[in-house]
Amino acid sequence: MNENEIRKIVSDTVEKLKAGREMTLTGARTLSRAVMKEAERIGIKVVVCVSDAAGNPKLLESMDGAYIASVDVAMGKAYTVVALKMSTSKLKALAQPGAELYGVQFTNGGRIVVFGGGEPLVGSTGDIIGGLGVSGGSEAQDTALADFGKSFFETELAEKDN
Amino acid sequence: MNENEIRKIVSDTVEKLKAGREMTLTGARTLSRAVMKEAERIGIKVVVCVSDAAGNPKLLESMDGAYIASVDVAMGKAYTVVALKMSTSKLKALAQPGAELYGVQFTNGGRIVVFGGGEPLVGSTGDIIGGLGVSGGSEAQDTALADFGKSFFETELAEKDN
Amino acid sequence: MNENEIRKIVSDTVEKLKAGREMTLTGARTLSRAVMKEAERIGIKVVVCVSDAAGNPKLLESMDGAYIASVDVAMGKAYTVVALKMSTSKLKALAQPGAELYGVQFTNGGRIVVFGGGEPLVGSTGDIIGGLGVSGGSEAQDTALADFGKSFFETELAEKDN
Amino acid sequence: MNENEIRKIVSDTVEKLKAGREMTLTGARTLSRAVMKEAERIGIKVVVCVSDAAGNPKLLESMDGAYIASVDVAMGKAYTVVALKMSTSKLKALAQPGAELYGVQFTNGGRIVVFGGGEPLVGSTGDIIGGLGVSGGSEAQDTALADFGKSFFETELAEKDN
Repeated sequence: MNENEIRKIVSDTVEKLKAGREMTLTGARTLSRAVMKEAERIGIKVVVCVSDAAGNPKLLESMDGAYIASVDVAMGKAYTVVALKMSTSKLKALAQPGAELYGVQFTNGGRIVVFGGGEPLVGSTGDIIGGLGVSGGSEAQDTALADFGKSFFETELAEKDN
Repeated sequence: MNENEIRKIVSDTVEKLKAGREMTLTGARTLSRAVMKEAERIGIKVVVCVSDAAGNPKLLESMDGAYIASVDVAMGKAYTVVALKMSTSKLKALAQPGAELYGVQFTNGGRIVVFGGGEPLVGSTGDIIGGLGVSGGSEAQDTALADFGKSFFETELAEKDN
Repeated sequence: MNENEIRKIVSDTVEKLKAGREMTLTGARTLSRAVMKEAERIGIKVVVCVSDAAGNPKLLESMDGAYIASVDVAMGKAYTVVALKMSTSKLKALAQPGAELYGVQFTNGGRIVVFGGGEPLVGSTGDIIGGLGVSGGSEAQDTALADFGKSFFETELAEKDN
Repeated sequence: MNENEIRKIVSDTVEKLKAGREMTLTGARTLSRAVMKEAERIGIKVVVCVSDAAGNPKLLESMDGAYIASVDVAMGKAYTVVALKMSTSKLKALAQPGAELYGVQFTNGGRIVVFGGGEPLVGSTGDIIGGLGVSGGSEAQDTALADFGKSFFETELAEKDN
């Protein structure tokens, strides 16, 4: 091996280690496209938000004709799943009146969303590296799209280099 | 047909397409007057808000003696019906504890209202071109007034040029 | 005099005492129309807000094509002039960095506006009974329109029964 | 020409009128890609936000390594330019202490941004159909990128069907 070949191997290895370790804009775009394609297939218009490991928005996209309110809801879902490390459909049960976390929806400046459509995104090392928020259909549809997106991300994007 | 006749047809067609396509202040005023006249007939004092297609207030009027809190509620209703494309009485069922969208009332900066008295206003092309929010009576009264206003708008204002 | 004649005299007297003493929706509408007519004359599109003696909105109207941001600004001006009992152009000088009230613009939940276009409205007894906020032109234009509106209100509406 | 031919001309004319009349997700994506390619060329990492004609976010994208604060700033710029119908660099001069609109930056819930990097986007009919907000470099860089994006949008996207 000459020096250039060795440099190439080191560079590729570092890239592979990075892949799936943090949310990238490229990954967020690919994920959003996949979710929107599925939304089109089932005939609804959604807003998709992808957050990074700190819960900050990495990408937000609104399909033409989506609900105005969905921008805020999708951003809230993408934040919630990272901030509380659970899907919004799991949080839903915990946040009902009388349940364990009732009241959490009034904290964090109104950014906690307690109905389905948000999923944490797990990277190749098993850590949560971002969040996905989908809003625009019924709760069942948003939940199904977020599940779809989570699977897509974790099989196609985060794990692809393993 | 000569060129001028053709131009006339084109111009008329474009004008007709525009009519009933967006909320105007004139339309909002006429609608508010009609709703307030009906409120007087049933003996209550209400705040009326009419929003445009983006949910922004086009008009807000408070009858003498109406509740202070109704200003905020009427504005919220007029926003909600555009932002979620449904009446607030339909949203009411979805937003109850345990129901599909419980928690939506804590999103969007507290502007989502989940009880009756808000109706989306459909223009001549079938699109929602604004919203009506009424607050001041019992929920049944506010709901009835918003229904009345919706019918009035859609029969008297939005459709009049068809 | 018979009973009906006496009732009529009492009723008229009470009405006259009430006139110019509190902001009415009828007065607010007349004022808004007058300001908008003047805005049309000078060729600008404005949002007008009229508040009551507590600073709460009595009327808000947005001319077709006015700035989106003007809704919030007009409401803020109509609140500010009642809350601080001075015009927003007078407050402007006081709120500059280094001046006496610098910082007041960060209080009251962001509802204090410190540039021209807001005038308190004085009733027939000499008390402030409401506020006028105009937004949509240059500061000079908004200030001129608010001055115009204040004069109109105090000469045509509040004083008419004196 | 028979009636069908005339109908065809009218229909085609209406379609052409629609083109470049509203912000689409496809247009927003193309614009964001172009701005980010230019940002890479000059060596900075930015957040890009594209809003619709109502100032609501249509797209938000954050380049890997961009400032956390830039998310909020880019969204604010994209809102401001639609809400006030001017670039944020023009607003900058008006919003300085002592200037005409000093204080406007504290209205509208803190969404008004008063430094360069925001440009309104004009559609094929001459109306503002959206806004572009760029944040991440120096003010001069953000301003140059927003100018670049505005030109790109108006020459490549909004006008292409004329």
